[in-house]
Amino acid sequence: MNPIGVFDSGLGGLTVLKELQATLPYENILYFGDTAHVPYGNKSAETIIRYSVAIANFLIEQKIKLLIVACNSASAYALESIQMLVDIPVIGVIEPGAKTAAALSVSKRIGVLGTKATIRSNAYQTSILSLAPGAEVFPVCCPLFVPLVEEDYLGKPAAKLIVCDYLSSLKKHSIDTLLLGCTHYPLLKKLIVNEVGPLVKLVDSASTCAGQAKEILEDLKLMNESPNPFTRFFVSDDPESFKRAGGLFLRRPIDHVETVSELYQKI
Amino acid sequence: MNPIGVFDSGLGGLTVLKELQATLPYENILYFGDTAHVPYGNKSAETIIRYSVAIANFLIEQKIKLLIVACNSASAYALESIQMLVDIPVIGVIEPGAKTAAALSVSKRIGVLGTKATIRSNAYQTSILSLAPGAEVFPVCCPLFVPLVEEDYLGKPAAKLIVCDYLSSLKKHSIDTLLLGCTHYPLLKKLIVNEVGPLVKLVDSASTCAGQAKEILEDLKLMNESPNPFTRFFVSDDPESFKRAGGLFLRRPIDHVETVSELYQKI
Repeated sequence: MNPIGVFDSGLGGLTVLKELQATLPYENILYFGDTAHVPYGNKSAETIIRYSVAIANFLIEQKIKLLIVACNSASAYALESIQMLVDIPVIGVIEPGAKTAAALSVSKRIGVLGTKATIRSNAYQTSILSLAPGAEVFPVCCPLFVPLVEEDYLGKPAAKLIVCDYLSSLKKHSIDTLLLGCTHYPLLKKLIVNEVGPLVKLVDSASTCAGQAKEILEDLKLMNESPNPFTRFFVSDDPESFKRAGGLFLRRPIDHVETVSELYQKI
Repeated sequence: MNPIGVFDSGLGGLTVLKELQATLPYENILYFGDTAHVPYGNKSAETIIRYSVAIANFLIEQKIKLLIVACNSASAYALESIQMLVDIPVIGVIEPGAKTAAALSVSKRIGVLGTKATIRSNAYQTSILSLAPGAEVFPVCCPLFVPLVEEDYLGKPAAKLIVCDYLSSLKKHSIDTLLLGCTHYPLLKKLIVNEVGPLVKLVDSASTCAGQAKEILEDLKLMNESPNPFTRFFVSDDPESFKRAGGLFLRRPIDHVETVSELYQKI
């Protein structure tokens, strides 16, 4: 059975992959990390679309049955461009996250954390408001969260201070739900809960996205039952550091990573 | 008179530009920031070379008389590839910095701070040892320094903690000279001095590189005497955020930035 394609600007989408493997344990999966261009969060819309479309084309050539745009910045800017190009279902992380947040929130006061590109896109804000008109959405850019995760710096006192800085503005808004609008942020959950308190419901785009993927495959009768599913990893640059840091996300080692830089340059 | 070309992965090379403008106030300068691919510090050697050669070609087409590779990661990996391609002088930031550090150090115990790519390249270590055989070089990767600078986070307590973490290993080595092996790091000087103490001499690649540029132009009789020199800024992506953040580096606003993404994609 054809695999599911997942792509991200780099490592972050591995949180989505992990949830997919838990939710759909019999699926074959191709994961592409665009490590030659990471991060997307500080790039323009045009550039994010260009990179995303190239990767989508590569994965489509590998005959995937469903494409998951696991990067929030790419979901915010490039989802429609990709959907226009291809004839398989394409889902991002924004809509599933927004849907869950809108459903879970009682007070309809919802915080959203994200990279600069994601927050600037207003994608979460717009999506939540379309589902829960009248909701109040409080977006916060957290540009240092990704480097803190990737440098394995979360156990240090500096990480706690930075989380406190970024979230301080949210505290006065009495939110009851907080959307983690970046694939890296689930790794910061403990620090975030310490800051906002246990009563605020955290919504994690990775797990809501995996749930939507399952619904789609069930609806289209495309579920795989393979007893020995495979996951293949592709990167556009530097497989070694992807392997090393990828372990932080998956909590298990990554044995083999394929580099497709030559192919990708031509696209 | 033809301009000097300067390139960097993004904003960091503006510290070199600033020193160049101070040292060579009558020169015309073209600055290229590769904002579509920033940062280079976490990319592979092959990818850094590919990006650097493309930018060098673009600047050569603009008829520059001297090319300065202001990015430490690009200087470490791509300098020779570029030098083989072109027939104008090409200088990086590694050699001038290493030369100054080797000359200034009395105890020949020298610390080097840099990104992962720069430290991994061993370029500073090798260059210092060729100039001062028997010196002891203590390299330290500081991957969070660039995001701290770019997010304007240096005034916060978390920045102080991170500087302290990274430099703690250096303290026991009794260095007398510390090389700031990344264009962003001069902006952290105050925090670094607080940590290592005022007796350690700091060497800043940006200013040593500007000194070498001046020597070369004098030697080749290529100095400009223009009373109204111009500086033009090019980026591969998102001129607006370059303008905004560039002000932090130059301490004056940048009015006009040209995007060359289309040309750059074709290369």
